[in-house]
Amino acid sequence: MTEFIEVPKGLDRVIVADTEIGDVRGEEGFYHYRQYSAVDLAEHCSFEQVWYLMTHAELPTRAQLAAFKDRVAPHRKLTAQLRELLPHLAVSENGPVAPLDGLRTALSAACAARPMRPVLDIDEDARAEDALFACAVTPAILTGLWRLSQGQEPLDPRDDLGYAANYLYMITGEVPTEAAASAIEHYLILTVDHGFNASTFTARVIASTGADVGAALVGAIGALSGPLHGGAPARALDALDAIGGPDNIDAWIRGELEAGRRIMGFGHNVYKTEDPRSNHLREVATAIGGDIVDFSKTVERRVVEILAEVKPGRKLYTNVEFYAGVVMELSGVPRPMFTPTFTTSRVVGWSANILEQARDSKIIRPRARYTGTPPPQPLPEGGFTA
Amino acid sequence: MTEFIEVPKGLDRVIVADTEIGDVRGEEGFYHYRQYSAVDLAEHCSFEQVWYLMTHAELPTRAQLAAFKDRVAPHRKLTAQLRELLPHLAVSENGPVAPLDGLRTALSAACAARPMRPVLDIDEDARAEDALFACAVTPAILTGLWRLSQGQEPLDPRDDLGYAANYLYMITGEVPTEAAASAIEHYLILTVDHGFNASTFTARVIASTGADVGAALVGAIGALSGPLHGGAPARALDALDAIGGPDNIDAWIRGELEAGRRIMGFGHNVYKTEDPRSNHLREVATAIGGDIVDFSKTVERRVVEILAEVKPGRKLYTNVEFYAGVVMELSGVPRPMFTPTFTTSRVVGWSANILEQARDSKIIRPRARYTGTPPPQPLPEGGFTA
Repeated sequence: MTEFIEVPKGLDRVIVADTEIGDVRGEEGFYHYRQYSAVDLAEHCSFEQVWYLMTHAELPTRAQLAAFKDRVAPHRKLTAQLRELLPHLAVSENGPVAPLDGLRTALSAACAARPMRPVLDIDEDARAEDALFACAVTPAILTGLWRLSQGQEPLDPRDDLGYAANYLYMITGEVPTEAAASAIEHYLILTVDHGFNASTFTARVIASTGADVGAALVGAIGALSGPLHGGAPARALDALDAIGGPDNIDAWIRGELEAGRRIMGFGHNVYKTEDPRSNHLREVATAIGGDIVDFSKTVERRVVEILAEVKPGRKLYTNVEFYAGVVMELSGVPRPMFTPTFTTSRVVGWSANILEQARDSKIIRPRARYTGTPPPQPLPEGGFTA
Repeated sequence: MTEFIEVPKGLDRVIVADTEIGDVRGEEGFYHYRQYSAVDLAEHCSFEQVWYLMTHAELPTRAQLAAFKDRVAPHRKLTAQLRELLPHLAVSENGPVAPLDGLRTALSAACAARPMRPVLDIDEDARAEDALFACAVTPAILTGLWRLSQGQEPLDPRDDLGYAANYLYMITGEVPTEAAASAIEHYLILTVDHGFNASTFTARVIASTGADVGAALVGAIGALSGPLHGGAPARALDALDAIGGPDNIDAWIRGELEAGRRIMGFGHNVYKTEDPRSNHLREVATAIGGDIVDFSKTVERRVVEILAEVKPGRKLYTNVEFYAGVVMELSGVPRPMFTPTFTTSRVVGWSANILEQARDSKIIRPRARYTGTPPPQPLPEGGFTA
């Protein structure tokens, strides 16, 4: 008989793969891409440098970065097919379609049209080209869907703008301030990858079947859309709105706790310390400044203090959602685009994971334990329950 | 420090979940849906009875089946949105799009337009309705894409035809023979589910994030498109074509083995006996009869004999691909639709698994072991390699 292996539920702490892409050290409040601190990278690099690092396993030279940008450039605008499709995907007869769902469909179509071939059937360079295409076109798809849902035409990126500035421009049609572009570039770099989360794992399971890069990315987008995973930076902002002002902070927090609701933007199942992404985004928000920043810092302080009082011994800190929401709001990202914005960076992390998984030929195929009525039971007459 | 748990590569033999949906007993050559032998179900039930069994955990009464068919009926044809979209998805500027890739896109769009809400946010009935919609519309999407790629218009299903007969009718525009419809109905029932394979697992990982049913199904379609998973019944037929006739069987087999190639349609990583699906499909093919059936049985016999001679001690049998290809060819399914046909049944198995997973609130989130250069390394000046 085959011997089965018991592990904790949800594969908690189960090592599924070796990786050279990065890791999260929850106890230390530290995470990294390749051998570099992710926060260091956010402070000193452009998004494209980090993108290159993720998929090439080393930082580029200046010449390599220029060549990389030249490879990316032609794919940053909508293909002719996407221009035709997007109006059908942005709005349905039931109203505007969630941008993340629209991205799932549009990216699926664009990858299928290329067409992408199974990773098992192509070499590393061809896989990397497929991944580069998908990552490059994602901001154009998301911003195009957003504008169409608002009755506006999609915009092409501008050659004179950096990665995050272009993203904001393609949403709003206006060139953002340097502060806003820089804040979003920091956010995007900080969210490229984060260990073996559920969407990254989904991408790797799909890639392990030998399927194409697009199939794996489309699956990962689906996983990210789950409330237990992708989260919702917009919820933290909605909470700030619900509080309304400094006088209502304590009453609101105690009301939420008494009602047994989670305070959005607080707590993380890996970090046992402050979330390094949250720390850095707090700094980014502070550098921009304004009433909302002061208010959110006060809310943060009171939530932590009241939680310490109500649930002593259980330390809870802000997670990436809280200040991500603040930074995106300050930078002019519309709230329905908060989680989709996260996807424009995470698609790079997924891609690095898919390319790494594709070098391995072992399919990821676990088992389940059957716990139902023992088979075979005799079929009732005609296969009908009486 | 967090303690990690080491398991075999690819999660081989690792129990990820308890299930009451079914199981595969590889040593016995037996598999089941709920408490019934899958082969018994194929012999005695209609596809809709098995579909009901999978998602309701029991066989229907006659009245329940009639009510179920009434719920399914309105979703069996293309929605207005899909009628608009499909022509853009069936063919791209680079030629016809693989039907499975087109299904991935179209089903994503249809689920997003409904819209489907996260499984975490809705009750069991609402989830079941979403799953029913997706399963019901899948044959219309696939056959519509196929006909459009052939320059023909999609067809609506006919009320007077059974499940498999309609599927064949929607491909060819002709009412199939009873023998062909019955053969495909058997095939569809036999392929509804098969343990915790990679696409089923993908669907469950995505559902474990709380994402909607559509997100999970779209991810599963991607996994099924992988050469290591979905397989390709068409390849077995291509091999029969390559052999050409009885006189060339031995020479062809020995040639393939000498060239180090796998004989398509033989061997399975779970079954250590004859594949029960293969056995049953051989009977189904034999009942239809014809030169191709005699020829394939001769090829099967010689492959098994020559493999026993060349690789003594290593027993290899036909897997589901071999006679699935023969049955589909006999029934008039075009070869590019072989694997997509598999999807029209497997979507029911995925759905049952998604509904089961959705009752559990634990996210599936394993870990990876970082094996790269230890971080944090100092960033080079400006984040550029010299």
